[in-house]
Amino acid sequence: MPETQTTPSLTPHDPSPAPAAAPSPAAAGAALAAPPPGPAAVRHVFDFAEGHREQAALLGGKGANLAEMTRLGLPVPPGFTITTAACREYLRTGAEPATLGGEVSAHLAALEERMGRRLGRGAAPLLVSVRSGAAVSMPGMMETVLNVGLTDSSVHSLAAWAGDERFAWDSYRRLIQMFGATVLGVDSGLFEERLSRARRAAHAPTDAALPAAALRDLAGEFQELVRAEGRRAFPQEPREQLDLAVRAVFDSWQGERARLYRRQERIPDDLGTAVTVCAMVFGNLGPDSGTGVAFTRDPATGQRGIYGDYLQNAQGEDVVAGVRNTVPLSELARLDPASHAELRRITAVLENHYRDLCDVEFTIERGRLWMLQTRVGKRTAAAAFRIACQLLDEGLIDEREALRRVTGGQLARLLFPRFDEEAAPAPLARGIGASPGAAVGAAVFDSATAAQWAEAGRAVILVRRETSPDDLGGMLAARGILTSRGGKTSHAAVVARGMGTPCVCGAEALEVDAANRRLTTAGGGVVREGEVISVDGGTGRVYRGEVPVVPSEVMEYFERAGQAAGAGSAGRAAASRAPQAAAPGAGAGAGAGAGAGELVAAVHRLMGIADRVRRLDVRANADTAQDAARARRFGARGIGLARTEHMFLGERRPLVERLILAETEAERREVLRELLPLQRADFTGLFEAMDGLPVTVRLLDPPLHEFLPDLTDLSVRVALRGAREAGHAGSAGEGAGAGDAGGAGDAAGRADARLLAAVRRLHEQNPMLGLRGVRLGLVVPGLFAMQVRAVAEAAADRALAGGTPLPEIMIPLVGTVRELELVRAEAEETVAGVARARGLALRIPIGTMIELPRAALTAGRVATAADFFSFGTNDLTQTVWGFSRDDVEAGFFATYLEKGVFQVSPFETIDVEGVGALVETAARAGRAARGDLKLGVCGEHGGDPDSVRFFHRVGLDYVSCSPFRVPVARLEAGRAAAGA
Amino acid sequence: MPETQTTPSLTPHDPSPAPAAAPSPAAAGAALAAPPPGPAAVRHVFDFAEGHREQAALLGGKGANLAEMTRLGLPVPPGFTITTAACREYLRTGAEPATLGGEVSAHLAALEERMGRRLGRGAAPLLVSVRSGAAVSMPGMMETVLNVGLTDSSVHSLAAWAGDERFAWDSYRRLIQMFGATVLGVDSGLFEERLSRARRAAHAPTDAALPAAALRDLAGEFQELVRAEGRRAFPQEPREQLDLAVRAVFDSWQGERARLYRRQERIPDDLGTAVTVCAMVFGNLGPDSGTGVAFTRDPATGQRGIYGDYLQNAQGEDVVAGVRNTVPLSELARLDPASHAELRRITAVLENHYRDLCDVEFTIERGRLWMLQTRVGKRTAAAAFRIACQLLDEGLIDEREALRRVTGGQLARLLFPRFDEEAAPAPLARGIGASPGAAVGAAVFDSATAAQWAEAGRAVILVRRETSPDDLGGMLAARGILTSRGGKTSHAAVVARGMGTPCVCGAEALEVDAANRRLTTAGGGVVREGEVISVDGGTGRVYRGEVPVVPSEVMEYFERAGQAAGAGSAGRAAASRAPQAAAPGAGAGAGAGAGAGELVAAVHRLMGIADRVRRLDVRANADTAQDAARARRFGARGIGLARTEHMFLGERRPLVERLILAETEAERREVLRELLPLQRADFTGLFEAMDGLPVTVRLLDPPLHEFLPDLTDLSVRVALRGAREAGHAGSAGEGAGAGDAGGAGDAAGRADARLLAAVRRLHEQNPMLGLRGVRLGLVVPGLFAMQVRAVAEAAADRALAGGTPLPEIMIPLVGTVRELELVRAEAEETVAGVARARGLALRIPIGTMIELPRAALTAGRVATAADFFSFGTNDLTQTVWGFSRDDVEAGFFATYLEKGVFQVSPFETIDVEGVGALVETAARAGRAARGDLKLGVCGEHGGDPDSVRFFHRVGLDYVSCSPFRVPVARLEAGRAAAGA
Repeated sequence: MPETQTTPSLTPHDPSPAPAAAPSPAAAGAALAAPPPGPAAVRHVFDFAEGHREQAALLGGKGANLAEMTRLGLPVPPGFTITTAACREYLRTGAEPATLGGEVSAHLAALEERMGRRLGRGAAPLLVSVRSGAAVSMPGMMETVLNVGLTDSSVHSLAAWAGDERFAWDSYRRLIQMFGATVLGVDSGLFEERLSRARRAAHAPTDAALPAAALRDLAGEFQELVRAEGRRAFPQEPREQLDLAVRAVFDSWQGERARLYRRQERIPDDLGTAVTVCAMVFGNLGPDSGTGVAFTRDPATGQRGIYGDYLQNAQGEDVVAGVRNTVPLSELARLDPASHAELRRITAVLENHYRDLCDVEFTIERGRLWMLQTRVGKRTAAAAFRIACQLLDEGLIDEREALRRVTGGQLARLLFPRFDEEAAPAPLARGIGASPGAAVGAAVFDSATAAQWAEAGRAVILVRRETSPDDLGGMLAARGILTSRGGKTSHAAVVARGMGTPCVCGAEALEVDAANRRLTTAGGGVVREGEVISVDGGTGRVYRGEVPVVPSEVMEYFERAGQAAGAGSAGRAAASRAPQAAAPGAGAGAGAGAGAGELVAAVHRLMGIADRVRRLDVRANADTAQDAARARRFGARGIGLARTEHMFLGERRPLVERLILAETEAERREVLRELLPLQRADFTGLFEAMDGLPVTVRLLDPPLHEFLPDLTDLSVRVALRGAREAGHAGSAGEGAGAGDAGGAGDAAGRADARLLAAVRRLHEQNPMLGLRGVRLGLVVPGLFAMQVRAVAEAAADRALAGGTPLPEIMIPLVGTVRELELVRAEAEETVAGVARARGLALRIPIGTMIELPRAALTAGRVATAADFFSFGTNDLTQTVWGFSRDDVEAGFFATYLEKGVFQVSPFETIDVEGVGALVETAARAGRAARGDLKLGVCGEHGGDPDSVRFFHRVGLDYVSCSPFRVPVARLEAGRAAAGA
Repeated sequence: MPETQTTPSLTPHDPSPAPAAAPSPAAAGAALAAPPPGPAAVRHVFDFAEGHREQAALLGGKGANLAEMTRLGLPVPPGFTITTAACREYLRTGAEPATLGGEVSAHLAALEERMGRRLGRGAAPLLVSVRSGAAVSMPGMMETVLNVGLTDSSVHSLAAWAGDERFAWDSYRRLIQMFGATVLGVDSGLFEERLSRARRAAHAPTDAALPAAALRDLAGEFQELVRAEGRRAFPQEPREQLDLAVRAVFDSWQGERARLYRRQERIPDDLGTAVTVCAMVFGNLGPDSGTGVAFTRDPATGQRGIYGDYLQNAQGEDVVAGVRNTVPLSELARLDPASHAELRRITAVLENHYRDLCDVEFTIERGRLWMLQTRVGKRTAAAAFRIACQLLDEGLIDEREALRRVTGGQLARLLFPRFDEEAAPAPLARGIGASPGAAVGAAVFDSATAAQWAEAGRAVILVRRETSPDDLGGMLAARGILTSRGGKTSHAAVVARGMGTPCVCGAEALEVDAANRRLTTAGGGVVREGEVISVDGGTGRVYRGEVPVVPSEVMEYFERAGQAAGAGSAGRAAASRAPQAAAPGAGAGAGAGAGAGELVAAVHRLMGIADRVRRLDVRANADTAQDAARARRFGARGIGLARTEHMFLGERRPLVERLILAETEAERREVLRELLPLQRADFTGLFEAMDGLPVTVRLLDPPLHEFLPDLTDLSVRVALRGAREAGHAGSAGEGAGAGDAGGAGDAAGRADARLLAAVRRLHEQNPMLGLRGVRLGLVVPGLFAMQVRAVAEAAADRALAGGTPLPEIMIPLVGTVRELELVRAEAEETVAGVARARGLALRIPIGTMIELPRAALTAGRVATAADFFSFGTNDLTQTVWGFSRDDVEAGFFATYLEKGVFQVSPFETIDVEGVGALVETAARAGRAARGDLKLGVCGEHGGDPDSVRFFHRVGLDYVSCSPFRVPVARLEAGRAAAGA
C-alpha cells in the first residue's frame, strides 16, 4: 500500500478533473487477465485488479476506487472497468471503439472463470451490475443497470441457486424495468403503473409484500410493455444485455440531467464516463443479508468511527427509494457483529489510506461483507474546516494538505448569516440554492408590486415561475428571489448572484400562480400575496413565516479577530505577513455552541496556515474609512482600489454638477478649489484607517454624465413642463418633440433646460467606451491635479501628525504609455509642489490600471512609466469579450450557459484562455521591462477562489477584493501556495 | 558615383524616415578632417565630404544631400553637419553631448584651414550659415542663422575684403536681427519697427535702398534692442555665436510651429533635427552675384529641363520675403550664360543621380555658382502620376519604382470632383485643406440654422471660428465646413474627415462674427448669412459665390474602365488578377484637356502595374446591387462585406418592428417567413452584380433596438400624449415621470406604449457591448437560419439560371469557437436542406469576423470552425482601445492629437502596435491551425494606404473597402508588393 501520494486525485473540494492520463499497461499491478491487444491499440478495459485511485480520469472515480480497494485487499466483487476514453470515442464518432467488443469478451471470460459461473447461463448464473462512473462525482446523474444476465431461462436457475423463487423473479422484473427505461427508453411511469396495479390486486402495501407469482406475472407484463413501447423486445441474450447497457451508460453522459448538473458544477462536457461491470452480490437474500452506506467519520463533526445506515434484506435501490426505514449502523453490531467488526476494520484501512473521510456502499450477502464503492465523502462547509483540523491533529495530513482540504467557496458560505435551523419549521419546499444568504419577506408575484412594496418600506420576496429581464426592477427591490423553474444558471440565479441577493430557484414542488397571486405547495398548502416566507439561498430551503436569522459566527470571529490585531499593531510593523486573527478561545461566545467554537477554532487555525504560506498579498477595494477599517479587520494588507468617483456623489453632487456645467475656466477652477478640501478629508480617513499599509487611490474613472440626471427622465420632465406651460397659453402641439419642449419660463425650468443641454452634450451612445478615466483627466484641465494634490496633502498632513500614510496613485483606462507619461508628469509636479510647501519628502508611487487590451498588449512600454500595474479584470473582460456586464449578464448569459458557450460567467471567474492569457502576457512583459514592477489585480475576480489561484500562478503580487471577500482571498492565496 | 541604390531614402512620397543608422565612421568616404574621438564615443559631427544621401536619419535631409552633392563633385561650399543624435541627446537631457564642443572645434579648424580664413577673424573673416535639417523635410518650420562670425570688429574686415561697406553692414544687421529673434527670443516685430523707422528716415522705399550708414546705425540700434529685450548682450565672440545658434536650431525642433507641422504630416516627434554649418557664400555682392531656386523638371508636366526663379544681387531670404520680383531662370542665360550652363549641367547630373525631379537652391557669388541645397522636389498629385510615367519612359526607373513614386493618398485626391480653377474668382482666403472635396452653399454661422436650412433643402456651408461637439448637428447637415481657427487635427477637421464632408480650417485671414452672422475678409469684404460661398477642402481655398465644379476625370476613367471590362468578361474568368482598366485612349474625352488625358493615361498605366504585381486582392464593402456594380467597375474582385442590417431598414421597418415585438414563437416565425423572400431578392441582386466573384454576406450584426425609435424621443412623445389626455380630464401631475405617463387611451397611444415597453426592454447602456451579432443569432431562434436560407436559395436559383454565385457566410462578433460551432452547425444543416430541395450541390464557406480581442487571442481554436477570417478592424479598434468611434472621435481625439497621444486617429490608420499586433498574432495562429484559412480585412482600414501596406506585410489575402476606395487599395496593394 504505497502512501507516498499526498494529493488524492479526487477530493470533493477539487472540482477540476485530474489530467487525463493515457492508459499505461505498465502501470497495471496485476497480471493481465485478458490477452493484451496489439501494440498500436489503446486498451479500453481494465480489470479491477489492474488500476489504482490515481486513474479517475481514465477509469472514473468509481472504477479507480474499486481498483484501489482491490489493491488494498478489501472484499470487492470482481469486475472490470471500461474507460472514459472509450466513452469519448463513442460520443465523438457515434460508435464504440472497434476493439472494445473483443476486450470486453476477454475480461468477461476472465471474470467468469474466476467466479466459476457464466453470465446468465448454467446452474449458478453470473449476474453483473453495469454502473456509470465519471472522473468527477455526479451522483445519480447517470444510469445504472443491475442484474444483467437474467433471462427467461436463467431466472429459474437463479431461483434454484438462491433457493428463493421470489428473490429471482423480483430481480428479473427489476432488470426488465431498469433495462426498459434506461436502455430502451420506455417511459418509467408505465412500469410504475403496472407495479401499483399489481400491488392493489395482491393487496400488498409495498413491493416487498408482492409474492413470487405476482412478480413473475409482472416480469411477463413488463416484457410485453417493452416490446410495445421500446424499440425492440427485451433481449434474451445475456451478452447483448451487457453491450446495450454499456452503451446506455455512455449515452447517459449526454442526458439532460447530466448536462445540467455539469453546468452547475462547472464540470467540463467532454470528459465522458467510465463503465464498471461488476459481479452482482445480493443484499436481499434473507435476514442475513442487507445493504448500507457508511461514513468513516462523522461528516458533521469529523469524529472518527463509522456512521451510516443499514437496511436488512434489501438492495441498494431500496435505500434510495426510502420504501423501508433504515436503521443506524450501530444496529448492525447487534444484527451481525462479525460483519460490523469487519466494516470497522475496513473503514479504518480506508481512512488511513485516503487520509480523509470516505463514504462507502456495502452489501452483506448471506453474512459476507462486500464493498461496492468508496469515495472521499462530501461534507458541509463547516465540517470541512473541522475535519481538516482533526486530520491534522491526528497526523494523517500536514498543514499544506489541510489547507487544500477546504475551499474559499466553503469559507464564503460560512460568512453568510443563516437561518436558525432549530427554530425553523419543516420547509415548504426545497429548490436549488442559487445565491447564498437568508432572506425573509412578504411573498409577491409580480415585479411591479415588488418594487412598489419595497419602496413603501416592506421587505419582499419576489416569487416567479421563472424570471426574465422584465423582472429586473422587482429583483432589485426584493430581499430574496424564489422561482419554481430553472437551475443555477437560470436568469434568476445569474442575476441574483450578480446582485448578491439570496435566491432559491427550481423549487419544482411549488406551483406559482401569478395570475391569482399565490403559490401552492406539493402538500396543497397555499401562500398568498403578502404572506411572509423565508428563503435560504444556501440550502435551497423555503419556509412559511419568518424564520429567525442567526449571524454567522465565522463572520463575528473575523470582525473580532481584526479588532484584536488592530489594537496591538497600528504602525508599519503591522504590515507583516503574520496572521491577523485573534485566538478564538476568547469568545466563540454568545450564541455559538461548542460546535461553533470548534468551527471558529478550525477557521482560525487554517487562516493562520494560509497567511503563513501564501505568496499573494491580499488588499481590499474600499472607498470609505469605514470600509477600510472593516477590510483591515478582515485581514486586508492595504487598499488596492479606492474609487474616488464614489466621493463625488451624495451631498457633493451639486458641487460636481457645477463643475460639469462650468462655462468658464475660472468657474471650473473655483469648483475644483472647493472640492479639494473635501477630497483631502476623504483620503485622510483612508490613510488613518490603513495606517502603515498601502492605499491605492484611483483617479476619477466614470464619465461625467454619470453625475447628472438620466437623459430620458430629464427630457420627459422638461417636455412635460413645456407642455404644461403651453397648456396655460393654449394647448401642447401634437408634434412637440424632446428638443422643442424646453421653453420653460420659470427659474426651475431654465435650470432644467440648462441641465438638459449639458446632459445632451455629454450623452454618449456607449459611455463605457467614452470619455472617462485618463481621457477625462487629459481633457478636463485641473481635475486630476486636484485629486493628486488632495492625496499628497492628506499624506503630508498625516505624516506630519506622526502617521505612516503609504499612498499610491493609480491612473484608470490607460491605453498607451503616452497617456500615462502625460498624467504622470503633471502628478509628479503636483506632489513635488506639496512636498515643498509642507517641507517634507513625499514619495508616492504612480501606476496604472491595465484594463484595456491595448495596455496589456503594449505592457512592456507602459511599464516604463508605471511603478505598478493593477489589472482591472472587470473592464478587461468587457473589452476582451466585447460585452458589458450591465447589458448582457441578464440578457443572454442564461442562453450562453445553457448552450455551453460558458461554463461560468467570465465576470465571476476569470476567463483563463482569453482574458487570463492577456493578463499573463502583460505581467511578463511588464516585469521584463521593469523588474521591480508591482503587480496586482483589483477586479471582482480578486475575491473569486478559482481566479485567485490563477493570479497566484501567473505571479502577481496581490489581489484586491471587496472587504467581505478578503478572508476568502487570503485562504485561496494560501491554498494556491499549498498547491491546490 | 555609385548608382546601385534603387530607393532614395527621402522622396516626397515616403513620409517615413529611413531607419536611424548609428554613425559609422567606416562608411565615411573621405579621410577624417578631425581627429577621431575615443573608441567608445559616438561621433556627432561629420564633414560634408564624409556622408552620403542615405544618411538622412543621421544627418538630416539637407546634410545628407549636401554630402551627396559633395561626393558628386558638385560645387558645394565646405562645411559640416551636427547629427540628429546630438539633437536627440540634447532634447532628452537638456545639455549637448559632452564631446560635441570638441568635435565642432576640430571640424571648424579643418574648415578654417581649408578656406584659409578664420571664423570672424582676420582680414578675410570666415562667416558660416547655421541651418536646420531634419530627416523629413519640414520647410520653414525650424530656424536658420546666416552670417555667423560677424562682430563689431570683423564687420570692418568684411567690408574691406568685399570692397563693399554697405554689404558688410547689411550682413551684420541681418545677423543681429536673426540671432536676436532666433537665439535670444527678442520679438522680431521690434526689429521690423526699427527697420521701417530707418526706411522712413532715409526715404528708402525698400531695405535695399538703405545706405551703409543707416545700416551701421541700425546694427547699433539692434544691439541695444538685444541687450534690453534678450537675455544677454549680442555676443562678440564668433565661436559663442556659433554654439548658441546650434543650440537654437536644436530648440526649434520643439517650437510650436514645428510640432504642429509634424502632427499634420504624421512625422514622429522624437527624430530631432541635424544642424548644417556651412561657409557663407554671398549672392548680394553686386550684379555678378545672385541667388535662385530651380527644379530639374517641370513639377506640373514632368518635362525635363530647368525651371525656376532667379534674383540678381540678393540673398536667399530676399527671395522668400518677396521684396523684389524674381525673373525666370531663362533670364539667367542672358545675364550669366556660363553660370546658366553650369546649372544645366549640374541639374542633369542630379536628375540622373536621383532619378527623380529635384529642386535646388543656388547662389552665384561674383560669377561663381554654388549649390546650397537639393532635395527630391514636391509635386501635385497629378504631376506625381505623370512624372512617374515619364521617368519610366526615360528608362530612369523601373515599373516597381514607378509604383513607389505615387501614393494612394494622391490617387484619392484625384478622385474628388474639384472646382474649375479657370472659372474661379480670386479666393477670398486660403486655409488648410482639411477634408478634401468641393462644396458650394449658403454661409451659415450657427449649427441650428445650418440644420434648419438643410432640412428645408438648402445647401449650406457651416462657418465657425472653430467647432465643438455642440456643432455636430450643423456639421452633419452642411455640405462643407469652414473655420478660421485650428489645423488639420482640430475638431472641425477630424469630424469632417470622418463624415467625408469637405472642410477648410484655419483660414485665419477671415474674421468670423457669429453674433452678427457674417464673416469679414482680410481685405475688408463681408459675407453675410445666406450668401453663397465655395470651399475647396483639397487646396484650402475659399471663394465668394458659386464656383463651377468639374467632375474628376480620373473618377470618370474608373467608371468607364470598369464598364469596358465588365462588358467583356462576365463569368468566373473575370476573377483573374488582370487589370480591369480600359485603355484610356478612347475617351479622356469631354471636358478633359490634353493634360487630363496624359494624367488618365498615367493612372491607367500605373494601376495596370499595381494589379500585376500586387499579392493582396481587393474586394469592396457593398450592401446593394448598385454598390456592388460600381465596386466591380472600380476593380473590386468580389464583396468582402455585405451588411445585411441595411436590408432591414426602409420599407421593411414595419416588418422588422413586428419581428421584435412578436410575443409568440408563431408570430416571430411568421415574420421571418415574410422576410425570407425579401432577403433572398437582396442576395440575388448581389450575386448577379458580382457573378463569378465571391460575395461575403455578414449575418445580422446590430442590436435589435437599432430598428426601433429612440428611447428618449419615444418617452417624451408618450409622456406628452399622457399629459394631454390628463389635461382633458384635469391637469398633468407635477411628478409625472417617463414611467407613469404612458396611459394613453387611443389606439395610437396604445401602440406607442407597447413600443415604448419594447424599447425599454431592449434598451442597453452600451449597445456596442450588448446583444448583437452572433449573440442575437443564438438568442433569437430562426433569425440566422432565415438569413442563411435566403443566401442559399438565392445562390441555388442563380446557379440554376446559369450564373456563377460564390457566396460566403460570415458570422459577426464571435468571441469563442463554441459560438461559431453552434451557428455553423445550424447553417450547414440549412444549406444542406436547400441543396436537397433544389437538387444541386451547394458549397458555401462559413467564416467569422475577427473583431473582438478574444477571438484574436484564441484564433487558433476559432480557426478550427472557420473557412475564413475577416478582420473587423473597426470593432477591434474599439475594443482594443476601449473607445467607441461615435462617442470619442469628436470628443477627445482633438486633445489626443494635440498632446501627441495619437499621430493619427486609429480608426483612420491601423494602430500597428496594439490592434495590428493582435491582427498579426491571430493571422499567424489561424494559419497555423488551418493552412488554407483565407484571411481578409473589412474594416474601413481596408481602404487606408498605410493600413493596406500593413495588411500586405502580415500576409492577408485580401482587403475589402468602400467602392470608392477600391482604386486606392489596388494601388497601395501594388505599392506594398513593390516594396513601398
